[in-house]
Amino acid sequence: MLARRRAASISLLIAGIALAASPLRAQKSAEPPLHKVVFQVSDADPQKWNLALNNARNLQDDLGAEATDLEIVVYGPGIGMLKSDSPVAKRVADALKSGVKVVACENTMRNQKLGAPDMLPSIGYVAAGVVELMKKQQQGYAYIRP
Amino acid sequence: MLARRRAASISLLIAGIALAASPLRAQKSAEPPLHKVVFQVSDADPQKWNLALNNARNLQDDLGAEATDLEIVVYGPGIGMLKSDSPVAKRVADALKSGVKVVACENTMRNQKLGAPDMLPSIGYVAAGVVELMKKQQQGYAYIRP
Amino acid sequence: MLARRRAASISLLIAGIALAASPLRAQKSAEPPLHKVVFQVSDADPQKWNLALNNARNLQDDLGAEATDLEIVVYGPGIGMLKSDSPVAKRVADALKSGVKVVACENTMRNQKLGAPDMLPSIGYVAAGVVELMKKQQQGYAYIRP
Repeated sequence: MLARRRAASISLLIAGIALAASPLRAQKSAEPPLHKVVFQVSDADPQKWNLALNNARNLQDDLGAEATDLEIVVYGPGIGMLKSDSPVAKRVADALKSGVKVVACENTMRNQKLGAPDMLPSIGYVAAGVVELMKKQQQGYAYIRP
Repeated sequence: MLARRRAASISLLIAGIALAASPLRAQKSAEPPLHKVVFQVSDADPQKWNLALNNARNLQDDLGAEATDLEIVVYGPGIGMLKSDSPVAKRVADALKSGVKVVACENTMRNQKLGAPDMLPSIGYVAAGVVELMKKQQQGYAYIRP
Repeated sequence: MLARRRAASISLLIAGIALAASPLRAQKSAEPPLHKVVFQVSDADPQKWNLALNNARNLQDDLGAEATDLEIVVYGPGIGMLKSDSPVAKRVADALKSGVKVVACENTMRNQKLGAPDMLPSIGYVAAGVVELMKKQQQGYAYIRP
């Protein structure tokens, strides 16, 4: 009788351990070995644009492109980085090809009377850059402002 | 006998699930649908001050003022944003009215021999801007440095 | 019989509470009252270097050096802060003495043909500054970009 109760008690203990541990396991499976980083580009400074692109490439080189989830959010005075005459157009294209997500802020575009035809091809768009930066941080992305 | 033990075992399992789940529920009720963002203003550059104020307004426009908890922390060379002769005085007043918290760093004020009478009315104060920025991030605020 | 089962049930409940609470306790013991902050220095601007060093000192003054874990990551155009002819050499030495960790990015050093003999003594090195900044945020450090 006592032995059986002890057995029941142990099995419940094990169930308890599994339950207590499950949030951790769930977290691990939702975020595999992925390293998530969001970059802010909001300066009208091509040196900063190059630094952001270097930073993204260094992360991919160091951790492997498939193990990184990188997004560059461009807004405010930084929007020139993504205009069709951007001095870093070739580098933005390379970043997109390597799997980096690059998005322009539509609020900024509206303020500066820019439409998609004025912008580099293949980039993405978000309604508000600052909202995107907040949401990505809420989702566990590290934030880097070059 | 066995049936009763199974019942007991199930009730304990349910208690276990409730216990394991409770930290999550507690977290949810402490952070409703609130989007929390802390902005750093530490440059002596009115364009950056305007960008910080634009960012706060865009967050409110996009998510609703009542669903956002926004704080602008001003320190170091950025302190001019909150002096009574600030070129963005009117915009700071509007931000305060809309529910944005705006705080000045008292360390910076002491270093620059500034007192509350030198500053815009209705702003808040913190002992150290950098400590405030750290604490807010610890409390789950996203960090934006315009 | 019933009394004994109730006793068993209560002891399992207590075990359940302990198990459910343990992740929190583990977290607390791994992160005592420690306030963790990582600073990014990536501008070629001595005023920013001074601001980063001021920020670190203010955090120590406010919270106590023993309660803070501070790291300054220097990369890109900011690397001059840690060269042997740095205008803030004395202040960097003071920061190191007070327990602040200061690290230079080896990627940047390679690009600028710099070796350890070109740098300030006692600083640390990381393979890639941006990876370090990401990892520290993943480990719960607040991020400050002066």
